[in-house]
Amino acid sequence: MKNIKLTIAYQGTAYSGWQVQQNAVSIESKLMEAIQAVIGEDVKVYGSGRTDAGVHAEGQIANFKTDATIPPERFCYALNSQLPEDIRVLKSEAVPLTFHSRYCAKGKIYQYNLLPQVIDHPLYHAYSWQVRYALDLERMRKGAKYFLGNHDFAGFMSTGSSVKDTIRTIESLDFVEKGPLWVMTIKGNGFLYNMVRIIAGTLVEVGYGKIEPEQLTEIINSKNREQAGITAPARGLILKQVLY
Amino acid sequence: MKNIKLTIAYQGTAYSGWQVQQNAVSIESKLMEAIQAVIGEDVKVYGSGRTDAGVHAEGQIANFKTDATIPPERFCYALNSQLPEDIRVLKSEAVPLTFHSRYCAKGKIYQYNLLPQVIDHPLYHAYSWQVRYALDLERMRKGAKYFLGNHDFAGFMSTGSSVKDTIRTIESLDFVEKGPLWVMTIKGNGFLYNMVRIIAGTLVEVGYGKIEPEQLTEIINSKNREQAGITAPARGLILKQVLY
Repeated sequence: MKNIKLTIAYQGTAYSGWQVQQNAVSIESKLMEAIQAVIGEDVKVYGSGRTDAGVHAEGQIANFKTDATIPPERFCYALNSQLPEDIRVLKSEAVPLTFHSRYCAKGKIYQYNLLPQVIDHPLYHAYSWQVRYALDLERMRKGAKYFLGNHDFAGFMSTGSSVKDTIRTIESLDFVEKGPLWVMTIKGNGFLYNMVRIIAGTLVEVGYGKIEPEQLTEIINSKNREQAGITAPARGLILKQVLY
Repeated sequence: MKNIKLTIAYQGTAYSGWQVQQNAVSIESKLMEAIQAVIGEDVKVYGSGRTDAGVHAEGQIANFKTDATIPPERFCYALNSQLPEDIRVLKSEAVPLTFHSRYCAKGKIYQYNLLPQVIDHPLYHAYSWQVRYALDLERMRKGAKYFLGNHDFAGFMSTGSSVKDTIRTIESLDFVEKGPLWVMTIKGNGFLYNMVRIIAGTLVEVGYGKIEPEQLTEIINSKNREQAGITAPARGLILKQVLY
C-alpha cells in the first residue's frame, strides 16, 4: 500500500468547488474519475480543505492510498491525461502512510487579487475582483496589521460552518502591486469558512473609507459577522500553498 | 465631426482575430456592433493593426469618426455596456481629425509569455505557451541581442502577407521571469505578419539547443522563413501598447 500525495492547480471558474456534491461538477469528482480511469479502482481522496465554487488553486494538496504499481512520481502524467485542461496535477509523490492532506496541514497561504479600476480588464477578469471605488492602498496596509497574530475570527466566518474553535493565527498579510492588480497574500495556521474572502472584503471597505483601520480591533473582538465587511467574490481567490 | 480614439483590451481566445471576417466572430465586428448600438449608425473603425485568432491585447488602439454628442471620454462606458466581458474599452478620448490608429503608429510593444514547465498550468494556460523542453534562459537572452536594430525580417514573416518593405527596427527585446512565466517583451517600429511569434519560436529553439545564438545573424540574413524557428502559438501573445 502506497500513500500518494498530489499537488494540484485548477481554474475554479467552471466548477462547483472542490468537494463532491450531488448534481454538480466538482474538482474532487473530476480527480476521482481520473484516478478511477488510471488505476481501475475507486479510492477515497483526501483534500487539504474545500475551496468554494469559482475559487482557484495553484497548490491544493490531496492524497489517496493505493496498491497500484505505477511509480508515484509518474501518477501526475497519467492523471493529467484524464483530467480536463483546467485541472492539472503538478506533482505526485509517495509519502508516509501516516500523511493526511487535511489533518497534517500546519497552515495555508492564500492570494486574493484586487483590480482597482473603474473599468474591468478581460485578461484579469477570471482571477480578480474589480473594485470600482477609489482605494487607498496605504490605509489597507495599515488595516492589514490588525489581523496579524492570534484572534477569535468568529465574525469572519460565513454561516453554514460547524467549526467550534474559531481561534486562528495570521502570520502575515500584505499587499503587493503587480501590474494593474493589488495582490493580497495571507498566511495563517488555518482559515474558517470564507475567512480570507471576508478579510479581503473588509480591507476593501477600509480602502474606500467606510471602515477606519483603527476600528478593526473592535470589529474582530465583536465576533459578529455583521460588523465585518462583505465577502469578496470567489474569483479573486487562489489557494497558493498548503504548509506541512 | 469628432475623431474618437479607443484603447481596447481583449482576451482573444474566443475570437477569429481582430479583423472582420465572413462567418467568424472578430473583435472588430463586436466593436462595430457596440458602436452601432450606442450611436445608431454604422461607422468605419480603424484599428492599429490586426491581431490573429487567439492573440490578446491590453492596449489595442482603434479610432472612428462620428457626430454623436456623447462626451468622448464617456464612450468607453457606453460601449462596454454593449460588449462581451472578454472585450473592454479601457479608455476613450477625442483626438485631432488627422489621427489614424494605423498610419500614425510609430511602433508597438508586444509581450510573449512562455511557461517552461513539463506540466501545463491551468491559471496560465490561456495566456502562455507551455514548453516542455528544458530551456536555457541565458542562451535565449544572448540570442535576443541578435534581433536588435535594423534588419530585413523577410524570413520572419508568414506567407499570406502582401507587405513589400520587410525592413523593421527592433528597439528592445528582453526576458523577465514572473512567477512560473518567462515574459518576453519586444518593442519595435513595426512588425510583419507573425513576426513576434516567429521570433519567440526561434528563441525557444535557441533555448533548447537546436539553434546556436551565433547562428541568428545568418538566419536573419538568409531572409528565408525555412531557416527561422517555428511560429509560437497565438495564445502566448499580447499586444501591450501602440506607440504614437
